Amino acid sequence: MINSLETEQASAYIHYLARFGKTSDGGNTRLLYTPTWLEAQQAVFSLFQAKGLDAFFDDVGNAYGRIEGTLASQASIVTGSHIDTVSSGGKFDGAYGIIGSLLAVSRLVSRYGRPKKTIDVVSLCEEEGSRFPLAFWGSGSITGRYEQADIDGLLDASGISLGEAMRANGFGQGHYQAPRRTDIDCFIELHIEQGQVLEHSGNKIGIAKAIVGQRRFTVTVEGAANHAGTTPMHMRKDAMELASRLITRLVDKARKIDEAFVATVGQIEAFPNTANVIPGKVSFSLDIRHHSTNMLDRYCEEMETFFHEQEQASQLGISVDQWADVAPVAMDADLTALAFQSAQKTGLPVQYMYSGAGHDTQIFGSCCPTALLFVPSKGGISHSPLEFTADEDLEAGVSALAALLYKLAY
Amino acid sequence: MINSLETEQASAYIHYLARFGKTSDGGNTRLLYTPTWLEAQQAVFSLFQAKGLDAFFDDVGNAYGRIEGTLASQASIVTGSHIDTVSSGGKFDGAYGIIGSLLAVSRLVSRYGRPKKTIDVVSLCEEEGSRFPLAFWGSGSITGRYEQADIDGLLDASGISLGEAMRANGFGQGHYQAPRRTDIDCFIELHIEQGQVLEHSGNKIGIAKAIVGQRRFTVTVEGAANHAGTTPMHMRKDAMELASRLITRLVDKARKIDEAFVATVGQIEAFPNTANVIPGKVSFSLDIRHHSTNMLDRYCEEMETFFHEQEQASQLGISVDQWADVAPVAMDADLTALAFQSAQKTGLPVQYMYSGAGHDTQIFGSCCPTALLFVPSKGGISHSPLEFTADEDLEAGVSALAALLYKLAY
Repeated sequence: MINSLETEQASAYIHYLARFGKTSDGGNTRLLYTPTWLEAQQAVFSLFQAKGLDAFFDDVGNAYGRIEGTLASQASIVTGSHIDTVSSGGKFDGAYGIIGSLLAVSRLVSRYGRPKKTIDVVSLCEEEGSRFPLAFWGSGSITGRYEQADIDGLLDASGISLGEAMRANGFGQGHYQAPRRTDIDCFIELHIEQGQVLEHSGNKIGIAKAIVGQRRFTVTVEGAANHAGTTPMHMRKDAMELASRLITRLVDKARKIDEAFVATVGQIEAFPNTANVIPGKVSFSLDIRHHSTNMLDRYCEEMETFFHEQEQASQLGISVDQWADVAPVAMDADLTALAFQSAQKTGLPVQYMYSGAGHDTQIFGSCCPTALLFVPSKGGISHSPLEFTADEDLEAGVSALAALLYKLAY
Repeated sequence: MINSLETEQASAYIHYLARFGKTSDGGNTRLLYTPTWLEAQQAVFSLFQAKGLDAFFDDVGNAYGRIEGTLASQASIVTGSHIDTVSSGGKFDGAYGIIGSLLAVSRLVSRYGRPKKTIDVVSLCEEEGSRFPLAFWGSGSITGRYEQADIDGLLDASGISLGEAMRANGFGQGHYQAPRRTDIDCFIELHIEQGQVLEHSGNKIGIAKAIVGQRRFTVTVEGAANHAGTTPMHMRKDAMELASRLITRLVDKARKIDEAFVATVGQIEAFPNTANVIPGKVSFSLDIRHHSTNMLDRYCEEMETFFHEQEQASQLGISVDQWADVAPVAMDADLTALAFQSAQKTGLPVQYMYSGAGHDTQIFGSCCPTALLFVPSKGGISHSPLEFTADEDLEAGVSALAALLYKLAY
């Protein structure tokens, strides 16, 4: 294991971490509490030590690198992201936030010495929910959202329980400090955007005003299956026809209601799904996201009215099953403004935006002020071996984070 | 085997034939050249004999029941339908046309004696294309559309060839007369409607003016798969959004172009088909039918123009693969008018219509004048154990056919 790298380039550290869980397609797979996950988390622990930070684990396997502040009994500024990945994910998602935080802190310490306030770089054990049916295990354990009792009976695809896997990695046995913390001053996360907003605007830093709320539905249209040749158009109860009208309108409604609103129909299934039979039933998914609960409510109300009208007009049935509801989380206004100003002062082109994807920041948001900084993602591609952020953009993010940490801690 | 039934009710004969190939769900499966098919065709042969007709097979297994005309050297009036079924089909599809023809002829002979012109009741060996990748093997062999050379290499799902199966049933070896005929005066088919036109109009007899032409396509929309949360609406290349607009328009266009036009999108597939990913590709089937080639052409031209406009406007790709093209077949105008008048004279409410499904009549149409008579199908249901036509409607069809045959043969 390499404990230090002969460089200060973020990309070199990211490529180093990408050795752990490298897949044959050039991606990374580090599922929680697997051997590659443990190797990566231990490598991060060693990097913390190599950079002169006080490294320690908590009892769920979050790894910290601390630089103690000169002022006694201050709460910690926590900055970092998650070490786990999706299956065959990219090198940057999560890993960049850990590396970026480590480099920002180490550069500040090299230049200005110890800060007034304690800074903890954190490598969160889990965010993606890719192995067990639970996401945000790392940040959730720190903020008290989850306790070990919550994970009873959570099994992976092989039938191994989360608790069992945790203990097999040496955690969950009280050997380390309890994960729950009440001494966090604020949480700051640096992350790749995973979208194309910055790429299109040309700005290098995006400061999230909020992480969007998200609702997911399955919409089912029930008509009557019938012969494609012998059933005249006016005698049809064509579930596909109505489903396509609904999808068109749902997407149009999203475009009209607000420019930050998104609606996605990603999944569709027709029954019996045969070329010469009019579909008797069509089901499709609907994923809607926006940073305002009011706006999400308004969309849903309009959808309900529209569906009711369409049912009346078509004499077909429309049923809606909502299976996910995540509330929007606003970032701290002051901290966000400070992040914006700090980035701007370093000469970087910066903008406000919304995060369309979930992040650990939203979990910390229930306990402390938070800020979320983005750098561009090439083509917006993420959760893929093709995920990429240019070296200069990685460095810009480290500079922006360092500028904010300086304001906060020095 | 029962050679005669103590009744003149069509329904009794249909229920009798339904014994051959009865399935556990109440349906019928009589695939070409299977034991249940052979038993059914032999039962029909015996019924022909029991009704006093001269019964004979041809060398592909079509069964005939002939009543010789009193005028020498006349071509035959041929009337009948097919004995085979789809898997788990209904009792009426095909079988009714054979039974109806047999009863119509036997009633005419009972009442008026031998006709002037020879009438052949035919039980065609195959129409559905359910066992081998070929349809209309019976009528195709009679009309010269198919020869035995055409079937080399046609295998069923078990790898048995059509020729092998035919020989195993005693056909295809020259023991019977060659199937090809050039002595057919006209062909008349009585069939259940398999649609709801008669049920809705309340008429008992439908006289087909034409069997519709049919074209089938696979339409593929190519966009870009992307994150459902981080990709604003204006940056999307959402293949589902465009596909739903196309489907809506394709269906609307069918409604507008002509009341007899039908368009069906029965199959759809999205990629990757995940709720939180904008589909990068959506493929769907399109089945269009109409009795006029010009109208089908016009629809296709408008579709091409519309797709081109949509490609330009959306910057997504649209590709169209046409994989079926069956031309419309007009029924003989004089014979059809005579069928209408004869039915009307018997006091039955009758109407002209189009056949949205394919029938043996369309194959005979290339060789001789044809007429196609429909009776109502309950709920339009066909190719299902639920297929049903009421006894009185079955009788109405026999009366209408008998009236037409009287005009033609006596």
